[in-house]
Amino acid sequence: MAVYTSVSDEALSAYLSGYDLGAPLAFKGIAEGVENSNYYLETETGRYILTLFEKRASPADLPYFMSLKRHLARQGFACPQPIEDKKGKMLKTLSGRPSVIVSFLEGLSPKRPNAGQCFELGQALARMHKALEGFDGRRKNALGPSSWASLWAGRAPDADALQSGLSSLINADLAQLQAMDLCSPALPHGTIHADLFPDNAFFLGERFSGAIDFYFACSGALVFDLAICLNAWAFDSRGAYNFTNGKNLIAGYQKVRPLVDAELSSLPMQAKGAAMRFFLTRLVDWTETPDDALVKPKDPLDYAARLAFHRKAKSATDYGA
Amino acid sequence: MAVYTSVSDEALSAYLSGYDLGAPLAFKGIAEGVENSNYYLETETGRYILTLFEKRASPADLPYFMSLKRHLARQGFACPQPIEDKKGKMLKTLSGRPSVIVSFLEGLSPKRPNAGQCFELGQALARMHKALEGFDGRRKNALGPSSWASLWAGRAPDADALQSGLSSLINADLAQLQAMDLCSPALPHGTIHADLFPDNAFFLGERFSGAIDFYFACSGALVFDLAICLNAWAFDSRGAYNFTNGKNLIAGYQKVRPLVDAELSSLPMQAKGAAMRFFLTRLVDWTETPDDALVKPKDPLDYAARLAFHRKAKSATDYGA
Repeated sequence: MAVYTSVSDEALSAYLSGYDLGAPLAFKGIAEGVENSNYYLETETGRYILTLFEKRASPADLPYFMSLKRHLARQGFACPQPIEDKKGKMLKTLSGRPSVIVSFLEGLSPKRPNAGQCFELGQALARMHKALEGFDGRRKNALGPSSWASLWAGRAPDADALQSGLSSLINADLAQLQAMDLCSPALPHGTIHADLFPDNAFFLGERFSGAIDFYFACSGALVFDLAICLNAWAFDSRGAYNFTNGKNLIAGYQKVRPLVDAELSSLPMQAKGAAMRFFLTRLVDWTETPDDALVKPKDPLDYAARLAFHRKAKSATDYGA
Repeated sequence: MAVYTSVSDEALSAYLSGYDLGAPLAFKGIAEGVENSNYYLETETGRYILTLFEKRASPADLPYFMSLKRHLARQGFACPQPIEDKKGKMLKTLSGRPSVIVSFLEGLSPKRPNAGQCFELGQALARMHKALEGFDGRRKNALGPSSWASLWAGRAPDADALQSGLSSLINADLAQLQAMDLCSPALPHGTIHADLFPDNAFFLGERFSGAIDFYFACSGALVFDLAICLNAWAFDSRGAYNFTNGKNLIAGYQKVRPLVDAELSSLPMQAKGAAMRFFLTRLVDWTETPDDALVKPKDPLDYAARLAFHRKAKSATDYGA
């Protein structure tokens, strides 16, 4: 849940006068995303989401995210569409924050994704990758493999405090991952979502209805995006791999965009790398979030459990490919 | 902001199957109310708010609140209307909590109410009191004058920690208030909202569009409800009385329901009593809320400042009546 910046009714009215959206009819802070403040906004012309950017998403990156979403929407991929103001601007300032109004997307996020939803999600991920083939924006993955050593530096005691002996396992994992080239040019590259967790995907029943929260999107190996989704969609709450979910996710993806051999052979390391990325950022949040913070940090051990699975995986078939 | 109880998409679908509202299209936790969990719910038939009752509102009281809102809606007073399920039930259980689906109300809450909005609010409050004349529900005010001594018991050191010397002022106020009969039978009685703060009132521009959050509603002296509104709507952020707002609020009220002499002469004490009620409950929340709570307690000193104003007020004319 996250509403960090409050917006008064007066400030909202002044802000909306720059748009052709009519007068506001409803405005409620919503618990969506953990990085930014989001509001449900209803005006005389329809329903929207108003986002105020709080942190992590640096202002210099925001135009990239806007172009990305516009490109996707033009390609027919369902995602929030940034709305232009009367002068054609999408990024504005509100309550001292960069902000944007985007179109409202129908759908519900699955709490416990089932096999059918995983198949749909795999298809959607591949469709998104294909829709982004013609997108000319580029952004470095700030949380990619080259960032992991510095995220990890000095945190071994924190890891061991969470689980005795964890730091030596992480050291070995990192040494192994650094020796591989997760971003090898042999792997198909493109634009990836990089955070397509169940709470960033909407469904109407079993049907995928759209993706939100593109604020980690970047350039990268496409299979790394699939590996992130396997970690996010195909493990149960106790950290055990849900083979049926994983198999369906991969099958859905391959139905739209078959993986090449280099991607299939790389899959276990990609999955391990993806788990490492979320383990490390969660470990940082866990140790640096003040006790009285509004948003509780997520447990890094969820991803330590995934890493334990990936350590034993030998090939893509262990994931159901 | 408050979403305490999470509801999965599966639990929601099962829940909605008991209603004639169609399938869910959107479902988002919203930052509305501080006592209960509230969700924006959109289905094939429209927009709703789903509330899960968390605390303070005791289950035994819930049927009273449902009847109250239905009565108001039938009298044409805009408020959330409880929706019946297929069997005619309004109160149901979801995620282990009592719950209700209510109609969606358009409007925005004013952050800094202006004089025009105060006039509208005064009118609306009086219209609500008149609309409730035929309502036969009864509920004791659990936070009325008879509760204040026990709320205060043992908290003098907490008050003095907030502001040196505050406890002796409160002791004197309480002695004075106990000597008066704030609930004198000479005062017109009825059903009061008892918590009509700006965030519980919606406006479309300057026009009042409805009231929400009736979960403190109870039987009581009508002028006490007006006194609560004076405290909530007619003081600025530094605790100074905004005479123009207060004058407009009272004038709006009297336009619909003129105050009788007993109410006018009682107004300063009613205002002091209303400030005492919120000072005491805020003091309790302030000292008992854990530091890591999701909802930050409100500062009791806001109401200590109001009490300081009320101590000096001599008659209703000091409030603009």
